[in-house]
Amino acid sequence: MTSIKDVARDVEMSTATVSRALRGLAGVSEETRERVMESARRLGYVPSPSAAGLASGQTRTVAVIVPRVTQWFFAALVQGAEEVLRERGYDLLLYNLAGDPSARHRVFETSLLTKRVDAVLILSLKPSPDELERLSRLGRPVTIIGADMPGWATVRIDDHEAAATATQHLVDLGHRCIAYLGGATEGVLDFTAPSARLAGYRCTLEGAGVALRAELEEDGEFTVAGGQRAARQLLGLEVAPTAIFAASDEMAIGALRAARELGVRVPEDLSVIGIDDHEMATYFDLTTVAQPVHEQGRVAATQVLAALTDDDWKPEQVILPTQLVVRGTTAQPRT
Amino acid sequence: MTSIKDVARDVEMSTATVSRALRGLAGVSEETRERVMESARRLGYVPSPSAAGLASGQTRTVAVIVPRVTQWFFAALVQGAEEVLRERGYDLLLYNLAGDPSARHRVFETSLLTKRVDAVLILSLKPSPDELERLSRLGRPVTIIGADMPGWATVRIDDHEAAATATQHLVDLGHRCIAYLGGATEGVLDFTAPSARLAGYRCTLEGAGVALRAELEEDGEFTVAGGQRAARQLLGLEVAPTAIFAASDEMAIGALRAARELGVRVPEDLSVIGIDDHEMATYFDLTTVAQPVHEQGRVAATQVLAALTDDDWKPEQVILPTQLVVRGTTAQPRT
Repeated sequence: MTSIKDVARDVEMSTATVSRALRGLAGVSEETRERVMESARRLGYVPSPSAAGLASGQTRTVAVIVPRVTQWFFAALVQGAEEVLRERGYDLLLYNLAGDPSARHRVFETSLLTKRVDAVLILSLKPSPDELERLSRLGRPVTIIGADMPGWATVRIDDHEAAATATQHLVDLGHRCIAYLGGATEGVLDFTAPSARLAGYRCTLEGAGVALRAELEEDGEFTVAGGQRAARQLLGLEVAPTAIFAASDEMAIGALRAARELGVRVPEDLSVIGIDDHEMATYFDLTTVAQPVHEQGRVAATQVLAALTDDDWKPEQVILPTQLVVRGTTAQPRT
Repeated sequence: MTSIKDVARDVEMSTATVSRALRGLAGVSEETRERVMESARRLGYVPSPSAAGLASGQTRTVAVIVPRVTQWFFAALVQGAEEVLRERGYDLLLYNLAGDPSARHRVFETSLLTKRVDAVLILSLKPSPDELERLSRLGRPVTIIGADMPGWATVRIDDHEAAATATQHLVDLGHRCIAYLGGATEGVLDFTAPSARLAGYRCTLEGAGVALRAELEEDGEFTVAGGQRAARQLLGLEVAPTAIFAASDEMAIGALRAARELGVRVPEDLSVIGIDDHEMATYFDLTTVAQPVHEQGRVAATQVLAALTDDDWKPEQVILPTQLVVRGTTAQPRT
């Protein structure tokens, strides 16, 4: 059976360095770590799981809590996080809530306590005060993606700014009758994004001197089907909007579909803009405010791993930039 | 601290029954299990993870190996499996290969050995003889989704038949010049579906007396972008096809996009059919052969859990039915 000494001899390093590299600890360059991993793999070295766990107190497993893995956005976050974890020899325990509130309760109240994990990543959920208390008691690093939680490690975009960018693009084109497709601003599966995006929309219109109209704000549930339903509603209004800002690309795609159903031409009769730059956005030629989804997953995973290995680590609030991507679904309103 | 005795007193059952219910063992009705879980949750009973693991020899964790979690098809399989696992109190350790061959090696050669898991679900990968040998040595239940592996527990559709159904639909409409978009039939991230679907296409054409033309078979890499590239190629042929059968809906969506780019009207100038019934299929009005994706995940998870609790369990080969769904992208060829 291959021992750690065999690996050390093979790469001509000390067993201490090899051990640090295999356990993913700090003080080892990426290049060294890769050489060690390659040698360990080639020689068939398999660390004893219990011994490794006991020695380091680590399980080399990170829990990732995700609202709904079948939505591209969340899957892309998971993939970004998983890449970083895998590179560093960590496994990912997936808690997919699939929109089920009881699943959320079970994860926070039982699973995180009974499964030993080294760290927790929370995607696009705003933990309640009770859940934050439970997370604190875990005594493990936690990073939250998509929420604004001072005092906690977070990775997100500036949702207010992203929404303002999208709305301003429509204002600059000359639109004055601009509808908003968003989602519930509270609830069991609450994101923080919806309220910030709604605020960004409203502020921008007010800044442009456009009066807000309540009937132009619709709940699209952050899904294609919800966006389609809500857009049908908007396009049936007596004074129908000339532009729709959807707070996600999936809702924007639903709005495009509703327009096609009703014979409303895009962008001649209706402009549509989203947020995300979804993988399907180019296929719909959708104008959008792009956010770095994959990168947010990577940064969040890097944060919790830093917390595990760096004694001086402090929770950081990372905000990644967004960017307007103009494609074919927005244009000047007809005069 | 709440003990198992407190829970037993609360639900008026024996501690033995409560213990079996909490550990998800057989011989306890679903109703009883739910009452026990509800009481345990309400009273704040938390089983000691190590004690639970030691007593039952179980980790209550199932490894799920997935080629690429950002593709809707795989995410839907994961979600189906996760639902069943969660209902039964199991957690899901996600190994997302993200198209990376070295990730595959690491999972089969190291992770499955060093992480203790109760069972393994493999999605849409055909394990190599060496990997099968390693899986056998694990001594844990394994279920494979999407592959035809006699002797192993498998859940899949009949890929040959699904492809034959799609091709026959085009033949019945009067098409004779029918192209095929598929993917590599071997490789590190090999599925078994591509070769069976290609065979279903060829057999059906031969059965209809249509000569096969090699230039009508293109590699669309099972992605939207790949399907778009391949369809562009096909539509540029001197004798261009009047219909395209894409072996996945994502490739079919790519083909629709290529047609729009080139000013080829669907279905007037070109019919397009896929396989899957992807969540976006209705938005593209795509004719397809629907497969029960979510259900395959559920059935596979149910299989491995049965293997863990039922002493008489034998690996089954489950084949779920597919169904032709005719929408707006297929029609008779122009005469």
